[in-house]
Amino acid sequence: MERLHRKERVAAILKVLSDNPNVIFSLGYFSEIFDSARSTLSEDITIVKKVVENLKCGVVETLPGAAGGVKYVPGISREEEEEFISRLCDMIKTSDRIIPGGFLYMNDIIYSPEISSKIGIIMAQYFRDKNPDYVLTIETKGIPIAMMTAKALNIPLVIIRSDNRVTEGSTVSINYISGSSKRMRTMSLSKRSVKKGSRCIFIDDFMRAGGTANGVIELMKEFDCSVEGIGVLVESLPYNKRLVQNYVSLMNLESIDEEKGEVKIHPSMRK
Amino acid sequence: MERLHRKERVAAILKVLSDNPNVIFSLGYFSEIFDSARSTLSEDITIVKKVVENLKCGVVETLPGAAGGVKYVPGISREEEEEFISRLCDMIKTSDRIIPGGFLYMNDIIYSPEISSKIGIIMAQYFRDKNPDYVLTIETKGIPIAMMTAKALNIPLVIIRSDNRVTEGSTVSINYISGSSKRMRTMSLSKRSVKKGSRCIFIDDFMRAGGTANGVIELMKEFDCSVEGIGVLVESLPYNKRLVQNYVSLMNLESIDEEKGEVKIHPSMRK
Repeated sequence: MERLHRKERVAAILKVLSDNPNVIFSLGYFSEIFDSARSTLSEDITIVKKVVENLKCGVVETLPGAAGGVKYVPGISREEEEEFISRLCDMIKTSDRIIPGGFLYMNDIIYSPEISSKIGIIMAQYFRDKNPDYVLTIETKGIPIAMMTAKALNIPLVIIRSDNRVTEGSTVSINYISGSSKRMRTMSLSKRSVKKGSRCIFIDDFMRAGGTANGVIELMKEFDCSVEGIGVLVESLPYNKRLVQNYVSLMNLESIDEEKGEVKIHPSMRK
Repeated sequence: MERLHRKERVAAILKVLSDNPNVIFSLGYFSEIFDSARSTLSEDITIVKKVVENLKCGVVETLPGAAGGVKYVPGISREEEEEFISRLCDMIKTSDRIIPGGFLYMNDIIYSPEISSKIGIIMAQYFRDKNPDYVLTIETKGIPIAMMTAKALNIPLVIIRSDNRVTEGSTVSINYISGSSKRMRTMSLSKRSVKKGSRCIFIDDFMRAGGTANGVIELMKEFDCSVEGIGVLVESLPYNKRLVQNYVSLMNLESIDEEKGEVKIHPSMRK
């Protein structure tokens, strides 16, 4: 690489940090690739911190010590989050999304990389302090937002299968009762997917009664793992009889009136 | 936002561009958020271009005209791609990944956000000039890399279902013969997933005989859409009798010797 000036180097450092969220880079690493003194790089990083602060897109942390260095933790301001979730509610409300049976078509929203990336950053922000080792989800629709959450946290995604496939080796399966439809379902996870004693968070697109989330908690017990947090994009009312208690939702679906073609949805309240 | 100096502004512009690949930002947009003259910003963007060039992480393009502006197209150098794919082959070879039945356990690889992001950038690079409107994949394992490809291209992901679910409205289904197992399978896609006349690329984790890819081509005909490219992470030999002809693979799986516990895999040859 040609030798860069400070105005170029600062941008380059931020680009490297931002492409690798939650990865610790030592000053030595930057010192080598940019052929610059550590003292110079320390000043660069002070500037990088200021930029991230101004953009309100997270925080750049300096970690002291031999294993220390600098890392970028993606984030979003409360204001931007609120504005974004309101915009999602509007998207869901205004279009013709009602599917017979009281479902909502949301694939265009949850499969949009732009939207799911932002949801991932928001979810990561809610669960970062749980120090999770894995992001769990169950196939299929929750995968994109769970993947983006995993990316923002820089931890592996684990996809629980809703049936038993042969191509993942030996699996552990459990049967569970879907809380809303009261039907018996199966979920399976390959034995080698998670390490014993791990901390997990479960991310999904939708929660009705919470039967799936409850099943995931049960399944993870079989792996001696804990579910430290549950995050769903949309929860549907009414809340009573919810099978799980602690979870974060971004939107509350109040009602779907198929006859009138009316969807009532609003951002979830935060304490 | 407080007024930034050039060394800060350049980094901020690159951060915004990089977080939103393939999104065109007008100079007017930056002029407003940074409270700077367009001429100043033009100079900033020249510096941003130089940084991206030096990091070999894609290209920053300036588009002239009224609808013009600047955008970041993520990329990776041929060298880095080769080094990365070799590393993946080594990961696959060295570990105990053989699953009875001649399958390979690769979830830890394809579900790692770090790895799948890079695969996404590589796939995007191969298919950018096809001007795709959508990235298609079929559930389940291909979803993370397809999502990351969609992110790098800034186009929607479309997930084809391997059975008929009720929650996505009316769907079009086809039956197809899996090329390797010769079994009849079904794939379905919600009618509102794609616009008529769209250009698609299909991304998946694995290709054996190509039956799935062939099925996707057939399914998309029902939507009056074309499959302009096919990208798979791993293709397995032998090549003969492949049901599709034009595709890009990143790795060639030559053989799995269950008895010896030996996997032969190497990076795919490029013309």
